[in-house]
Amino acid sequence: MKNIIVGQSGGPTAVINGSLYGVVTEGLRQTDAIETVFGMINGIEGFLNDQVIDMRPLSENGELERIRTTPGAYLGSCRYKLPEDLTDAVYPQLFEKFSDRNIGCFFYIGGNDSMDTVSKLSRYAASIQSDIRFIGIPKTIDNDLVETDHTPGFGSAAKYVASTVREIAIDASVYDNKKSVTIVEIMGRHAGWLTAASVLARKFEKDNPVLIYLPEVAFDQDAFIEKVSTALETTPNLVVCISEGINDGNGTFVCEYASDVGVDNFGHKMLTGSGKYLENLVKERLGIKVRSVELNVSQRCSSACLSAADLDEAVCAGTYGVQAALLGETGKMVSFQRTNDNPYKLTYTTADVNNICNKEKGVPLSWITNDGSDISEDFIRYALPLIQGNVEVPFENGLPAFAFRR
Amino acid sequence: MKNIIVGQSGGPTAVINGSLYGVVTEGLRQTDAIETVFGMINGIEGFLNDQVIDMRPLSENGELERIRTTPGAYLGSCRYKLPEDLTDAVYPQLFEKFSDRNIGCFFYIGGNDSMDTVSKLSRYAASIQSDIRFIGIPKTIDNDLVETDHTPGFGSAAKYVASTVREIAIDASVYDNKKSVTIVEIMGRHAGWLTAASVLARKFEKDNPVLIYLPEVAFDQDAFIEKVSTALETTPNLVVCISEGINDGNGTFVCEYASDVGVDNFGHKMLTGSGKYLENLVKERLGIKVRSVELNVSQRCSSACLSAADLDEAVCAGTYGVQAALLGETGKMVSFQRTNDNPYKLTYTTADVNNICNKEKGVPLSWITNDGSDISEDFIRYALPLIQGNVEVPFENGLPAFAFRR
Repeated sequence: MKNIIVGQSGGPTAVINGSLYGVVTEGLRQTDAIETVFGMINGIEGFLNDQVIDMRPLSENGELERIRTTPGAYLGSCRYKLPEDLTDAVYPQLFEKFSDRNIGCFFYIGGNDSMDTVSKLSRYAASIQSDIRFIGIPKTIDNDLVETDHTPGFGSAAKYVASTVREIAIDASVYDNKKSVTIVEIMGRHAGWLTAASVLARKFEKDNPVLIYLPEVAFDQDAFIEKVSTALETTPNLVVCISEGINDGNGTFVCEYASDVGVDNFGHKMLTGSGKYLENLVKERLGIKVRSVELNVSQRCSSACLSAADLDEAVCAGTYGVQAALLGETGKMVSFQRTNDNPYKLTYTTADVNNICNKEKGVPLSWITNDGSDISEDFIRYALPLIQGNVEVPFENGLPAFAFRR
Repeated sequence: MKNIIVGQSGGPTAVINGSLYGVVTEGLRQTDAIETVFGMINGIEGFLNDQVIDMRPLSENGELERIRTTPGAYLGSCRYKLPEDLTDAVYPQLFEKFSDRNIGCFFYIGGNDSMDTVSKLSRYAASIQSDIRFIGIPKTIDNDLVETDHTPGFGSAAKYVASTVREIAIDASVYDNKKSVTIVEIMGRHAGWLTAASVLARKFEKDNPVLIYLPEVAFDQDAFIEKVSTALETTPNLVVCISEGINDGNGTFVCEYASDVGVDNFGHKMLTGSGKYLENLVKERLGIKVRSVELNVSQRCSSACLSAADLDEAVCAGTYGVQAALLGETGKMVSFQRTNDNPYKLTYTTADVNNICNKEKGVPLSWITNDGSDISEDFIRYALPLIQGNVEVPFENGLPAFAFRR
């Protein structure tokens, strides 16, 4: 009988706690193999400072059910990178702590960087012939992990983006007798998956968002202004969606055109985003009403637009991870394989974590159309199943009731 | 038998279409007094251009039900101000158009400026002894209309703000081993009602948002930095909520400290908000991690956080307005009177529109505590009933399905 331990790492999502729920529930269910489930507070960094809690009481007092629909990382997160050098003193230190707590399996819920942690720990374990198993549970709204059809967290973020862009388009259209441009800035520094999801807001041809720009294609300001100008002729209240990471194709982000330059009248340096920059550009070049909206952190923490499909898969990823570890797998990430689009069918498997960490998967260039300003039907077919179904979040006194550590 | 006509004006809200639904439904129900219900496209401005539609078919094809839960202004809006001079030629022009369409009652759903339109039209009607009745239906997320306990639209916006701030606080807390400040900028140029609603996100004493700043109290930058610094000692991941309209008490908005100054390296003038300005200020003075989040237009157009209480009252305001007009009232706005706090009880009445237009009601100064950085229990008691209950919005293919004019 061994214990297992689970941690969360990197930026939070709306369903990362769903995966935590999956790991803990399945861990406690496997009573013939697992004694209890520990949680690391603030990931591997907190674990090094012995910040560990027993998850069993949360299952018994009902808090675990609430954790399932709570956004953010219940256990807290970290951005701690383990040393490349496996002979570093931190490794024996960690494994002594694993041994002290009789840990048999280690689960880390996160993105690329977190998979790097899983890779290093499993390689170190192999080097000392430790039988502790290390499994990564994928998580990121960016959807940029390789070796998996998609990642938990993306579906809910995509649903948030598409719903919100549809609402912003409605808001923009109330003065439909006056031309206007609304620029919506969406998260995604290097991969445009989430920005691409804004296309789902479109209800008919030439409906908003008419123009969509991803970081995968070089951004040309003059071509952009021309597209905006043309689009305004048929869509007087134009909505344009852009990734925060749009760039000139040579490594310079559009937002960098604006940063490090503005200084307010108290001498404070003003920083700004790509959306704000383009707002000013359109205003100056076309002289019409422009506003920009940065969707910001709600993309990764809104519980109002949870996708039932996404939450369900996040939970299953945790469950499947525990089962894979008990079957002896290590150095693996839980991976989604889509076996059919319509009806959508998904199977769970594992992939070598060493092929995943520190890599990023962008939107296929063939899915980006109209000189880099639109998204193809292929993407829509790919993304639609991931945003299906709504989740009933518990409410108290008019507001969503979330789990939190005291 | 007369027709009635309804229009929407000013900024949209999540429930302004609920009031439209109320007017249309009640109008079509009163078959012995009302022939049909017309809708003005883009308010009084569109009406002047004969942009009018018959609402009856929307009731018959089921679209009206969908309108009820669609954010934005289904009929479109305008910001058209009628001339002060009642001898202006536009007035006889308007009344001729009313006569052409056999209009008996005119309903205008909007805020202060829209009530100004109702005031002028009803006064002109009196001057020419027209028996057309003019009724205002209140609407504004700002909650700043006088002569009513609150306004439809505020409850849903407040629910959106409180839910979102609670989620942002969760997002901010995932790295709880590192100090950080998150500044949330909330709508409200002159009245802080909506920003005050962020206090509802707080679950226990010293929980986020710890500091809340409204435009009703002069904002002092040095005192602010000191408060932030002190608060960080007990709340390492601090969330501060501010109104976009915070100002120095002498007419200068905090956001004006920053605007008209920054110029990017293409020579474009950079404009920014109060939140961005304070983000830079805190970064410079305290040297810690700071981010700012502007909640932006989702505050007035999110359908995900509709308050059932608010939507219900918005519908009833429309219904009551039609009934009041049929009883002969004119030059009035539908007004809410709260007769009890707990259990919450509301009655509907009307108030003289001339006492309402062009006035703004701020948050009582006695409800603003802790040297202008917090909100009292009185506000919480006032606001809680307004955010109760969730609304089921129809969904199609994973996204909210809204009504729109084709």
